Amino acid sequence: MADYDLVVRGGTVVTAADTMRADIGIRDGRIVALAGRLEGAETIDAGGLLVLPGGVDTHCHIEQLQEGGGADEESWTTGSTACFAGGTTSVITFSTQFKGHGILEPLAEYRRRAQQAMVDYSFHQIITDASDEVVWRQIPDVVASGVRSLKVFLTYDPLHLDDRGFLRVLAAARRSGAFVTVHCENYEAINWRTEALLKDGRTAPKYHAWARPRMIEREATHRAIALAELVDQPIQIFHVSCSEVADEIARARARGLKVWGETCPQYFVLSASDMDRPGFEGAKFMCSPAPRTAADSEALWNDIRAGTLDIVSSDHSGWSYDGARGKKVNGADANFRDIPNGVPGLAARLPILFSEGVAKGRIDVNQFVRITATNPARLFGLYPRKGSIAPGFDADLVLWDPARKTTLTNALMQHVIDYTPYEGIEVTGWPVATIRRGAVVMRDGHVQAEPGSGTFLARGGYDMIKPRGVLPDGFDASRFA
Amino acid sequence: MADYDLVVRGGTVVTAADTMRADIGIRDGRIVALAGRLEGAETIDAGGLLVLPGGVDTHCHIEQLQEGGGADEESWTTGSTACFAGGTTSVITFSTQFKGHGILEPLAEYRRRAQQAMVDYSFHQIITDASDEVVWRQIPDVVASGVRSLKVFLTYDPLHLDDRGFLRVLAAARRSGAFVTVHCENYEAINWRTEALLKDGRTAPKYHAWARPRMIEREATHRAIALAELVDQPIQIFHVSCSEVADEIARARARGLKVWGETCPQYFVLSASDMDRPGFEGAKFMCSPAPRTAADSEALWNDIRAGTLDIVSSDHSGWSYDGARGKKVNGADANFRDIPNGVPGLAARLPILFSEGVAKGRIDVNQFVRITATNPARLFGLYPRKGSIAPGFDADLVLWDPARKTTLTNALMQHVIDYTPYEGIEVTGWPVATIRRGAVVMRDGHVQAEPGSGTFLARGGYDMIKPRGVLPDGFDASRFA
Amino acid sequence: MADYDLVVRGGTVVTAADTMRADIGIRDGRIVALAGRLEGAETIDAGGLLVLPGGVDTHCHIEQLQEGGGADEESWTTGSTACFAGGTTSVITFSTQFKGHGILEPLAEYRRRAQQAMVDYSFHQIITDASDEVVWRQIPDVVASGVRSLKVFLTYDPLHLDDRGFLRVLAAARRSGAFVTVHCENYEAINWRTEALLKDGRTAPKYHAWARPRMIEREATHRAIALAELVDQPIQIFHVSCSEVADEIARARARGLKVWGETCPQYFVLSASDMDRPGFEGAKFMCSPAPRTAADSEALWNDIRAGTLDIVSSDHSGWSYDGARGKKVNGADANFRDIPNGVPGLAARLPILFSEGVAKGRIDVNQFVRITATNPARLFGLYPRKGSIAPGFDADLVLWDPARKTTLTNALMQHVIDYTPYEGIEVTGWPVATIRRGAVVMRDGHVQAEPGSGTFLARGGYDMIKPRGVLPDGFDASRFA
Amino acid sequence: MADYDLVVRGGTVVTAADTMRADIGIRDGRIVALAGRLEGAETIDAGGLLVLPGGVDTHCHIEQLQEGGGADEESWTTGSTACFAGGTTSVITFSTQFKGHGILEPLAEYRRRAQQAMVDYSFHQIITDASDEVVWRQIPDVVASGVRSLKVFLTYDPLHLDDRGFLRVLAAARRSGAFVTVHCENYEAINWRTEALLKDGRTAPKYHAWARPRMIEREATHRAIALAELVDQPIQIFHVSCSEVADEIARARARGLKVWGETCPQYFVLSASDMDRPGFEGAKFMCSPAPRTAADSEALWNDIRAGTLDIVSSDHSGWSYDGARGKKVNGADANFRDIPNGVPGLAARLPILFSEGVAKGRIDVNQFVRITATNPARLFGLYPRKGSIAPGFDADLVLWDPARKTTLTNALMQHVIDYTPYEGIEVTGWPVATIRRGAVVMRDGHVQAEPGSGTFLARGGYDMIKPRGVLPDGFDASRFA
Repeated sequence: MADYDLVVRGGTVVTAADTMRADIGIRDGRIVALAGRLEGAETIDAGGLLVLPGGVDTHCHIEQLQEGGGADEESWTTGSTACFAGGTTSVITFSTQFKGHGILEPLAEYRRRAQQAMVDYSFHQIITDASDEVVWRQIPDVVASGVRSLKVFLTYDPLHLDDRGFLRVLAAARRSGAFVTVHCENYEAINWRTEALLKDGRTAPKYHAWARPRMIEREATHRAIALAELVDQPIQIFHVSCSEVADEIARARARGLKVWGETCPQYFVLSASDMDRPGFEGAKFMCSPAPRTAADSEALWNDIRAGTLDIVSSDHSGWSYDGARGKKVNGADANFRDIPNGVPGLAARLPILFSEGVAKGRIDVNQFVRITATNPARLFGLYPRKGSIAPGFDADLVLWDPARKTTLTNALMQHVIDYTPYEGIEVTGWPVATIRRGAVVMRDGHVQAEPGSGTFLARGGYDMIKPRGVLPDGFDASRFA
Repeated sequence: MADYDLVVRGGTVVTAADTMRADIGIRDGRIVALAGRLEGAETIDAGGLLVLPGGVDTHCHIEQLQEGGGADEESWTTGSTACFAGGTTSVITFSTQFKGHGILEPLAEYRRRAQQAMVDYSFHQIITDASDEVVWRQIPDVVASGVRSLKVFLTYDPLHLDDRGFLRVLAAARRSGAFVTVHCENYEAINWRTEALLKDGRTAPKYHAWARPRMIEREATHRAIALAELVDQPIQIFHVSCSEVADEIARARARGLKVWGETCPQYFVLSASDMDRPGFEGAKFMCSPAPRTAADSEALWNDIRAGTLDIVSSDHSGWSYDGARGKKVNGADANFRDIPNGVPGLAARLPILFSEGVAKGRIDVNQFVRITATNPARLFGLYPRKGSIAPGFDADLVLWDPARKTTLTNALMQHVIDYTPYEGIEVTGWPVATIRRGAVVMRDGHVQAEPGSGTFLARGGYDMIKPRGVLPDGFDASRFA
Repeated sequence: MADYDLVVRGGTVVTAADTMRADIGIRDGRIVALAGRLEGAETIDAGGLLVLPGGVDTHCHIEQLQEGGGADEESWTTGSTACFAGGTTSVITFSTQFKGHGILEPLAEYRRRAQQAMVDYSFHQIITDASDEVVWRQIPDVVASGVRSLKVFLTYDPLHLDDRGFLRVLAAARRSGAFVTVHCENYEAINWRTEALLKDGRTAPKYHAWARPRMIEREATHRAIALAELVDQPIQIFHVSCSEVADEIARARARGLKVWGETCPQYFVLSASDMDRPGFEGAKFMCSPAPRTAADSEALWNDIRAGTLDIVSSDHSGWSYDGARGKKVNGADANFRDIPNGVPGLAARLPILFSEGVAKGRIDVNQFVRITATNPARLFGLYPRKGSIAPGFDADLVLWDPARKTTLTNALMQHVIDYTPYEGIEVTGWPVATIRRGAVVMRDGHVQAEPGSGTFLARGGYDMIKPRGVLPDGFDASRFA
Repeated sequence: MADYDLVVRGGTVVTAADTMRADIGIRDGRIVALAGRLEGAETIDAGGLLVLPGGVDTHCHIEQLQEGGGADEESWTTGSTACFAGGTTSVITFSTQFKGHGILEPLAEYRRRAQQAMVDYSFHQIITDASDEVVWRQIPDVVASGVRSLKVFLTYDPLHLDDRGFLRVLAAARRSGAFVTVHCENYEAINWRTEALLKDGRTAPKYHAWARPRMIEREATHRAIALAELVDQPIQIFHVSCSEVADEIARARARGLKVWGETCPQYFVLSASDMDRPGFEGAKFMCSPAPRTAADSEALWNDIRAGTLDIVSSDHSGWSYDGARGKKVNGADANFRDIPNGVPGLAARLPILFSEGVAKGRIDVNQFVRITATNPARLFGLYPRKGSIAPGFDADLVLWDPARKTTLTNALMQHVIDYTPYEGIEVTGWPVATIRRGAVVMRDGHVQAEPGSGTFLARGGYDMIKPRGVLPDGFDASRFA
């Protein structure tokens, strides 16, 4: 009887810290050995390849419920397929609250739907209505059920919370031991500027970027940090688009605050000018915050290297462009305000990051693992089950060909969305196999997994997100309000 | 016939730039000559004294209308008396809008009441309700009438504007060529924290400071600047309490933005611990933002020297402490939320600044003139009529004894309020005579002037507050929204 | 008998703080009155003109002795003529020490030569050899004689001092109550890089800039400030070329240090690319630090507006380009190391600053006066005799036509040097008359003054340059070493 | 036949990224397996213990040759013993050049002496005389022999290099592919201030700190970085004592420069006041830079967490205090200038860091591994042989009891020096066994290893220290000078 169900043989194993030549022995879905040479019931040859921890994408939208009924196009089966195609094995998606409603029922529905998942998953609970019932009674229950992170939108109708609501969520998180993630843009400023643009007849997709210039993002970021400091609650700033915003995080960290920053592939390879492509094509590149300029993209790498931004997620939240399901193209009277935001990126995340980062010499491969797998797992409490390669971890692995050149096409993305904003970009480095808990779920682009084989990842408390215990005048308002 | 109605003889004349030995010749209320030796119909001896421009206090509350009817205790006659006692000859006070109402009628009422003034005066128009009627029709009229500055509160019930309202005011100001001043504290954060304190039974005056820690002020300051940058509208941040907040202004100025900062005497000599004095005495020191610590006071001088804070106003807004008019003491169930904010300071402003600044060697006497007279006059369009000593300027002068030591008492303040927060403080330097447009209105503490002798100062447009013309994507949203 | 020898009538008088319509009455070379209308023995019409304080140029090289004998081309008579042509009435030039020699004899020689001056003048004493004799005995004497500022070169053969020498000068200045100015570039770094360039055959003028990139200037600036902080001695950084360097000054000032910064016209209108003009023309633009880029020039204005750089001097130190006196062109084997540094600018300083600053809206006219006259006079102890327009000040005035457009030519500069680096630049604003102590010494470009009519300006102690009294561990090493 | 020579069983294995429960299988001195359960010829029980990579101490002085002959007290055998006692298995020590001599002969002598080592080792080559022979001919040879880092002192007689010498070393390093480390303090400033102190009769040990205040360290740090930027040569700043200095590194890194910073245990637990202990005891705490204050120590942790300082070395460089070998106590006429600098710390480094960092919650255990083993190994080219725990790495391990409380005594340090500056400090966390290349060399404090069993670690080139290729004007002066 073989010691191992599966052995990954001959690869170069990469963790956030180390690079080593080792075989990986897997039993019962877990890594049980790293060694020079192992024998198993099955063997997969990783010669000439990197073996990376499966990607952990802590910010993506899958089968998210819509206010009027129905859900996002990207279902758990199509989304899981895209994840595996791109080397990602764990995701954290969102459970949405609708204003005037609670969060327990929707979360139950999300968990029901996720039973079709093939990737492992957890949820961020979005709070859009910080009622007494929600903040004092339901959030504790949700957190106790293992959904340990809350999400707040400081902009977007009808999702956005005002400062009072945000403070109440921060306080509830502090009381419950939850983490908080924030979409930072100034709600009123975007609305005000959008109305002006539309009154001036500026309706094309490119005006999406005009409606939300960078100080709108910087403002909300500084505000979110200040309020989190007031409450003494750790937070993560989602999808930072440029260094001007990252600097606010750096300033906070220099003061010792527990504030983290995330960015996404779109901020490295897209720019505002993409939204000005001929016809209505620009709609394909609309996301919020809006991509800035090529110079901003280059500068963001400094923030990655400095650790100010230490997670790169996809913010996959696509809408098809055209045809029956197409929501991006929406008729002759279309204007940018009515075009749904978000770009798909589940499968593109790792290849783009590897190509722009590692292949172009901006980061090393350990940093790549750190920002795409280890840090996401650590910050969101999936660690030490997910996020690295070591005995005891789930056997979530990607076999990565560092030299393979690929031109991105929508077909390669394997998501349900009918386009990719990265169409035609050539990348160096490509996932050639994905292993999820010991099972080979993707090989040479062919995904094979059972719907429902994904597992819900309940998350307990952990040190990293504990408050610092530093409160203005020593007074903990979260105990009362 | 003498060349001059009045000659100020033998003093050391000080301007924002220069110090000179000169007589001052005055005719028809104006300065017409500066010379070594002049003869006039009347002479006032300034031997051994400094002759300074009359103080310009661009932030004080006098006879301000209250929502339920009635007005602030400090009337135009008592307020003018206090001004003259302290060496101030021009003020800008406030005309308040009540929510749901317009601004034209109140302004008319304010102007009617101000006909009793003895100091020269103008108004800031407070906007609390940025309705279409107000921002598109009434603000232009108000500005055209010479009331060229608008005031916005980002906190305080019922005064506060949300970000949308603030943006609309910024836009209206930009369209009308007006300036905007801002009270910067985060409304919801103060409320949230106040509620928690009260729930916890913390009602004493000192909790006023606990309710509004410095990040609450810093947050709103950064936000106000970001929104002003979005609109490309120059602003002044009122009553900066500490360097952490001033740094936001410095950052903005380093980017070239037209943002100015003001501070007040209370932030140099009071501290949060004053609000913790025995009994209910702490109420006497309550103002917003709250005074911080002695170390903060010391650090503020660096911001003065650097020019980040370039105006020191009184923010006189007193309420009597006790007795029939006393609103600070308000019964057994008093809690800090219900105690009206604000400390009186019309007469104390110049002596405290001179003593702490000049006598203690932190600034020179030209800087003193700059921050108390010249800069206020320049920034608010009273210049070149007010704010300096030169031919053509109004003959507004203070004869100042730089060596005289005085212990501050409420009687010396000559305001209507029944206390001064500066009681017992010894100052070096004192105004021994005040001249307003050539008339000696105070001598050795005796004020003599006719109610109604003050003049409304209509303010036209001027370069200093013109927008930079730098707009995101070049788009001027203020033309549309 | 008229009250005034001369009246300047009908002009707009400008000081560092104020702008006023006033006549100026002058008697015995001093301003004795400013008034609406004055009558004098003589009258000069300033209608439509600005009346500015005569320019104070605190950094220029005139008739400076050369090591091998002889002196700079620019003599006191030609230099004074250029000053008057450009609206400057006071200068501080340099007395040089030669290594191995003392400073008393050279200073005597400088004072002897300056007896031909027409402008008023003082000296900075350059220290190149900080021997015991010099620092303990001669510097006190020199300072007592009214030469209250010392100059140190951190680079240049044979002038440069090493850190020990610089510390000894700082200490001597502290003991004697003198001020210290510093040329900041790293000596060894320039030499090292120069040698490499020459070895590589890169000899053309443009390599002058390559030899001294900006970190070489920033390094020495930071070092000079750190050593001055160690000794607790106020200093001025000469000729700051770019914001990267100015930032070091701003950082120091934010810590409360007494450090000031100067820049020069060449850093606003020249750039490194000028040194790459065809043939040998580039030599005309060689000065140290080297001009940077147009973007750097633009950014420098922010430092001017922020007060980080608060004096603009000429650093006039020209060498003729061609012909008998020409030292810039020096033969077939010329290389940039052997070409003498420095560009002439006595007459160009005010017109360039006014045109680039005031006419283009970057600063206002009071700021112009401040950085070209008032601040130089204040910082170097010429105030309150020089630097402003007020009773008691010397009647040093420039009548300035703010609208006149002039194309700069070398003839207009009226210096002895055979070229101007500003040839062909069109400026807006021009001095139409210069008055020195009540005498009209230039009118419409015609200079008329007696050699020897200039006066030595002895400078006593003054507060501005007093040490702060803040020493590491409270220990004043300057008392011992 | 067992698969493994030695199995470390049941411990919690810690790397810079991960924490895992795993057995470690070792064969031929190397780690060959990490797995849930392994069997070996020998087994060492790590139950309840952490298993960390052996410490890598990249800055310590062992058997360093003295100018007059002889060597440092700490020999390779005593030093190795101390290393093993404290959990360190690899060191980089120094080979010194004497002025006027070359570097090849001394290096040969150092290598000869090191044949007694028990720890694995490499050298930094100190350059004190950057002659043509050395920089053009000998440095390439030394680097080719595997000594890939050079060390420069910017202060200390007779070691210090002036800026020219430093530039020549930077250039030589760039040409040879070597790394450069720098001791940053201003030579002349220390001398100047020292002389003043001695003249004033201030000779006690505490004046050592007075002689070198922090701006002296900050100055040299900024200068070193500026010159390294000029040459485009990566450097490490040694022994940063406070955040004021670390900020210079942070500023450089934010500009993208390859500059790293190191600090040492003494800067976390000692302070300047220790040098003021009664009698002559203060001499025991003298090192350079001097320890600052407790507040500085606390602030340094922020720099550790931010990654600005990413290596903590011992800078072990001790001198006995008393008795025959005692050099710290040196007679009645002792003054601080003549007392040799340096404190011993080979064995104390890891326990102090663990206790102050991990046990007190300032960093996590992975960060501890990163700054004491992984980063040192990576930055100095010992990686991937040293610095982590993974198949293929040398089996250098420490078994660490995270809970054990120990009071530090000199006996526990096992070095030759007759004192430890950390006497009496209680630490939490202690090394209970040390394994070097598979051999248990320390167990419960008993060190057992053969002199000569240590190995010279030749270091080849590696990416991390490659120049960025960013040169002023694109000109590479290092090719010529």
